[in-house]
Amino acid sequence: MPDDSNLATLLVSCPDRKGIVAALAQLLYGHGANILSADQYTDTAVGQFFQRIRFDVSDALTDRVAIGAAIAEVAARLGMNCRLAYGDRIPQVAVFVSRYDHCLHDLLWRHRVGELRCDVRAVIANHPDLEPVASQFNIPFHLIPVTPENKARTEAEQLALLRSLEIDLVVFARYMQIASSTFIAEYPNKIVNIHHSFLPAFVGQKPYHQAHARGVKVIGATAHYVTELLDDGPIISQDVERVSHRDSVDDLVRRGRDLEKVVLARAVRLHLEDRVLVHGSKTVVFD
Amino acid sequence: MPDDSNLATLLVSCPDRKGIVAALAQLLYGHGANILSADQYTDTAVGQFFQRIRFDVSDALTDRVAIGAAIAEVAARLGMNCRLAYGDRIPQVAVFVSRYDHCLHDLLWRHRVGELRCDVRAVIANHPDLEPVASQFNIPFHLIPVTPENKARTEAEQLALLRSLEIDLVVFARYMQIASSTFIAEYPNKIVNIHHSFLPAFVGQKPYHQAHARGVKVIGATAHYVTELLDDGPIISQDVERVSHRDSVDDLVRRGRDLEKVVLARAVRLHLEDRVLVHGSKTVVFD
Amino acid sequence: MPDDSNLATLLVSCPDRKGIVAALAQLLYGHGANILSADQYTDTAVGQFFQRIRFDVSDALTDRVAIGAAIAEVAARLGMNCRLAYGDRIPQVAVFVSRYDHCLHDLLWRHRVGELRCDVRAVIANHPDLEPVASQFNIPFHLIPVTPENKARTEAEQLALLRSLEIDLVVFARYMQIASSTFIAEYPNKIVNIHHSFLPAFVGQKPYHQAHARGVKVIGATAHYVTELLDDGPIISQDVERVSHRDSVDDLVRRGRDLEKVVLARAVRLHLEDRVLVHGSKTVVFD
Amino acid sequence: MPDDSNLATLLVSCPDRKGIVAALAQLLYGHGANILSADQYTDTAVGQFFQRIRFDVSDALTDRVAIGAAIAEVAARLGMNCRLAYGDRIPQVAVFVSRYDHCLHDLLWRHRVGELRCDVRAVIANHPDLEPVASQFNIPFHLIPVTPENKARTEAEQLALLRSLEIDLVVFARYMQIASSTFIAEYPNKIVNIHHSFLPAFVGQKPYHQAHARGVKVIGATAHYVTELLDDGPIISQDVERVSHRDSVDDLVRRGRDLEKVVLARAVRLHLEDRVLVHGSKTVVFD
Repeated sequence: MPDDSNLATLLVSCPDRKGIVAALAQLLYGHGANILSADQYTDTAVGQFFQRIRFDVSDALTDRVAIGAAIAEVAARLGMNCRLAYGDRIPQVAVFVSRYDHCLHDLLWRHRVGELRCDVRAVIANHPDLEPVASQFNIPFHLIPVTPENKARTEAEQLALLRSLEIDLVVFARYMQIASSTFIAEYPNKIVNIHHSFLPAFVGQKPYHQAHARGVKVIGATAHYVTELLDDGPIISQDVERVSHRDSVDDLVRRGRDLEKVVLARAVRLHLEDRVLVHGSKTVVFD
Repeated sequence: MPDDSNLATLLVSCPDRKGIVAALAQLLYGHGANILSADQYTDTAVGQFFQRIRFDVSDALTDRVAIGAAIAEVAARLGMNCRLAYGDRIPQVAVFVSRYDHCLHDLLWRHRVGELRCDVRAVIANHPDLEPVASQFNIPFHLIPVTPENKARTEAEQLALLRSLEIDLVVFARYMQIASSTFIAEYPNKIVNIHHSFLPAFVGQKPYHQAHARGVKVIGATAHYVTELLDDGPIISQDVERVSHRDSVDDLVRRGRDLEKVVLARAVRLHLEDRVLVHGSKTVVFD
Repeated sequence: MPDDSNLATLLVSCPDRKGIVAALAQLLYGHGANILSADQYTDTAVGQFFQRIRFDVSDALTDRVAIGAAIAEVAARLGMNCRLAYGDRIPQVAVFVSRYDHCLHDLLWRHRVGELRCDVRAVIANHPDLEPVASQFNIPFHLIPVTPENKARTEAEQLALLRSLEIDLVVFARYMQIASSTFIAEYPNKIVNIHHSFLPAFVGQKPYHQAHARGVKVIGATAHYVTELLDDGPIISQDVERVSHRDSVDDLVRRGRDLEKVVLARAVRLHLEDRVLVHGSKTVVFD
Repeated sequence: MPDDSNLATLLVSCPDRKGIVAALAQLLYGHGANILSADQYTDTAVGQFFQRIRFDVSDALTDRVAIGAAIAEVAARLGMNCRLAYGDRIPQVAVFVSRYDHCLHDLLWRHRVGELRCDVRAVIANHPDLEPVASQFNIPFHLIPVTPENKARTEAEQLALLRSLEIDLVVFARYMQIASSTFIAEYPNKIVNIHHSFLPAFVGQKPYHQAHARGVKVIGATAHYVTELLDDGPIISQDVERVSHRDSVDDLVRRGRDLEKVVLARAVRLHLEDRVLVHGSKTVVFD
C-alpha cells in the first residue's frame, strides 16, 4: 500500500450556496495543499451541498493545526458539517458475529491482503463457533453470550469493550442480534450491517425463505448503517444476482453468501475511505 | 425466421412419479417424432414434475390427431396438465396501453423484426395518445376510455373485442388500470403485466418515487402474470440496474424505461415460446 | 426537459499542478456563477488533470463574453484544453446507417422523448432500406450509395452535407463502411461508433460469429470514438450480457441488438452532455 | 449436505438421431431408477446430441452393475460418449498455486463449508508462500519448485504425485506456469484454469495492465479447460465487472480478484457436479 500519511480527506455537507467550492479550494491552495481529487454533488431537491476533497499536505506551507483551524472557521461561517481525516490515522474496527463465518472470513482475508485500511481490533461474538476464524487471522476474539435476560448487561459490556479499544467503526457481519437504541446512539452512522436481501424487499427474518416463497428471479444483499428502525437505515451498497426456479432455499443461501461478502466488504471499504455521507435516511457515496 | 410449422412444444406439469420421462419419450418415438430439446425440473419440496419438450413431426409415422390423442391418454393416466402447440398456430396478442409509449414502441418494433412469434391484433387504450404509434406499425388501435363510472361496461367491451379477435395473450404495456376479477378469470395466466420496480419492493403506485425516497442503489422491473392480488402474480422475469445518489426521480424513470422494455419483451417472448409453467404463485421458466 | 439555457458545462484537461481547482472556482465565483457540480480526476500515472464543472449563470454579475474571456486567460496561463458549452446551444447530430434499423430506431425514439439533448439533422445512408424509419420520425434522409470506386467522391459529398448542416457529432449507428482518415480528421473525437463485441475481443467483421465459434459465455458491445485504427478508438461505453451454449449465432445477434442500442445511446448521451474527455487512446467519463 | 450416495449423474454426447431420449429414459425406467432431472441440448449446426440425466437408484429393481452394463450396451449401439458417476464416489482434487492466495483461500473455504463436493488431496506449489494457507485448512502442501532447467523433471514429479493420489481434477488457481503437452494429455478436460481477463481479450501475461492500457470499461475473468494452445481451451465460465477511468491497475487487480474467485469456484463446482460436456473447442454447460 502506498504511503498516504500526508493525504487528507475532507467530507463536507451543508446547505447549498454560491462560493462554497471556491472557498474551500482557495483555502487549501493558500496553505499550499494540493487537491488530488474533488467530488461534489448538490441535491437540488433539498438544497444540500456535498463534497469530498482529497488533498496532499506533503508540501504544505503551514501545518495540520493551521489547516484544521482554517477549515473549522470556514465551516462555522457556512454552516458546514465537516469531517477531516489524515492517512496516518488508521480507523479502529470491531466486527460482531454470531455463527455464520463467510462475512467474517472474507473481511479478515481482505484486511490481511491490504484491501481495507484499518486495524481490526476485535471480533465480538455471542456464540463461540467463530473463535477459530478470528484466531487464524490473529484477531482477538471476545465471547459475550446474549440472552433475552442479560441483554442490557451484555450491551454495557460490549460498549465498554468498544470504548476501551477506541473503536471507530462497528461491523455487523451477520450478527443475529438487534442493537438497542442506546448502543446505536453511541455509534451514529458508524455501524454497518449486512442484510441478506435486496431491501426494502424481505425485511426481517429468513429473507431467502421469503424470496423463495415469492418466486423472485433476482436475489440481493444490502449493506446499510444501523438505525433504530429495523432494516431501514441509510443504504450504502447493494448488489443482486439472477436466480431461477431451480434454486432451492439452500441454493439461494449459498449464492447469497457471495453477494453478502462482496456487498459488506464494499460498504466497509467505502466507509473507511471516507466516501459516504449520510443525509436524512439516504447516503451520498463518492465512489 | 425458419419454418417451424412442424415443430411442436409440449408443456407438462403433474405430481412426480417414476416413468413420466420414459412414457412421453417412448410415446413420441413410437409416433416417429424427433425430440429436439427436453427440459425437465422436479420441485422436490412439493413433489411436482415439470417438463417442456420440443419435437419435430416432419417425419412422423402418424398424424397430429393420433399424437394428440396419445398424449391426452397418457396425460389422463398420469394426472398431467398438458399444453401442446404447433409452430403453425400463431398466438394472437392484444396490447393494452395508457399514455407511456416506450413498452408499446419496443414490443411493436420487436414484433416487426421477427423477435416475437405472434400476431399483434390490437392495441387497446384508455387514452388516445398512442394512436400514432400503433398506426406507424399498422396495428389497429381501439380507444376505450375508462372512468370509474363506466368501468364495468368498458371491461365488457374490451372482453368482447378480445373474444372476437380470438386473443391468446393480453399484454399490459404500462396500462394504468386495474383489471377486475371477471376480466382476469377469462385469461388465467394469459395476462402479462410490467411493474416498474423490483417486486416485492415498491408495490403500488409511483415505485420510482418510492425507490428514490428510500435511497436504494439498484432499481428494477418485474414482468408477471396478473392475478387478483395487485402486483402479486407469478413472476416471469426481472432485471435490475445500479443507480446512485446522483439519479433524480426523472433519471430513475428514464433508466427504468430501458429495464421495463427489456423485461416485458423477454416475458412476452418466453410466454409465446411456451417456456413458462405456473404452479401456485410461482413460475417454472425453461429458458 | 427543464430550462437549462443558462447552465454551462466546462470541460478542462491539463498537466496537473497545484491551484487549478481554486483558480477556476474562484474565477466562477468572482463572476457570480453558481457551481452546480464539479467532478475532478487526476491521472497520477501521467500527471494529467481533468475536470468537468457545471455552473449556472442566471444570477451572474457579468456576461458570457466576460466569463469566456476570463476562462480563456486562465486556460492560457495553465496550459489547459478547455471546452465551454451553454445549454441554449443545441448540438447538431447526423446519424450514418446502412441496413440494420435497431440503433437508428432506438436513437430516434430516445431523441423524440427527450432523452438526447440535440437536433438530429440528417440520417445519411448508403442503402435505401431505412428511409421509412427516418421518415417515421420526420428526419431528413440522405441516400449516398458507396462503392469501392466512388468512395472518395461520396465522402466528399458526405462531408459537404455535414458542413452545410453544421454538424457537431456524427454517429455511426451500425454503418458498415470504414471512414477515411480525411473524414476522421475533420471530426476528431466527434464520431461515435458502435461495435458489436466487447472490444478488444472480436475486432473486425462478424463478431457474433467469432464469439459463437469461440464459445464465450458473455457477449458485449462497445461504443468508441472513431480513429484511423479500425475498432481501436477511445472507448466511451461497454456493456455485456451472459449467454450460453444454447444461443445460436442468430440468438447472439438478437440479444446483441439490445446491448448495441443501449450502449450506443449511452455513449451519445454522455458525449452530448459533455461528460467525455479524451486523453491519448483513452477516455475520462464523468457520469 | 443431503445424502446423495444413491444419486447418479449420466452425461451423454453423441451424433443426433431419433429415439435417444426414449432409449435412455426407457432403460432407466426398466431398471426402476427414478429420473430426477434431465437436461438435453442438440447442437443442430453440427448435429450433436448432449444430455445430462440425474437419477435415483434407491428403489432400483436391479443393481449398479446391471445398470452400467445396460447403459454401455445402448452407448455402443448409438455411438455415445458416456460418463456415469454415483454420489458416493467423491472426486479427488489437486490445486496448483504459485504466490497469489485469493483463489486458493476461496476454494478451500468453499470446500470446508460444503459448497464443493470433493476431497482436496493436495496443494502443489512452485513457491513456498502459500504453505500457511494450505496448513490453515489442513490440506497437505507439496512444494515442487520449477526452473526452466528442471521443468521436465518437476512435471514428472507432479504427475507421479497426482497418480499416487488418484486425482480426478486438477485446478490451476493462479498457477503461473505453463503445463506441457505431456501433462495436459494425461488430464484431458480435467484441468481447470482461471485466466484473469475476459478471453479472448488480453491473452497472455499481465491482462490487467493490458486492460488498463486499452481503457476498457469492463473487466472480466475466464475459467477454462487447459489445452495445448495458451488461453484457448474450452470456456466453462466467465464473468465481468464495470470499471472506469478512476481504476488504476492496482484497482483492477483488486477488483479482478473478486471475479477470479467467483468464476473459478463456479467452474470447479460445475465440473464436480458433472454439468460440463466438451465438444470440440466449446462446452455445453447444464446449469
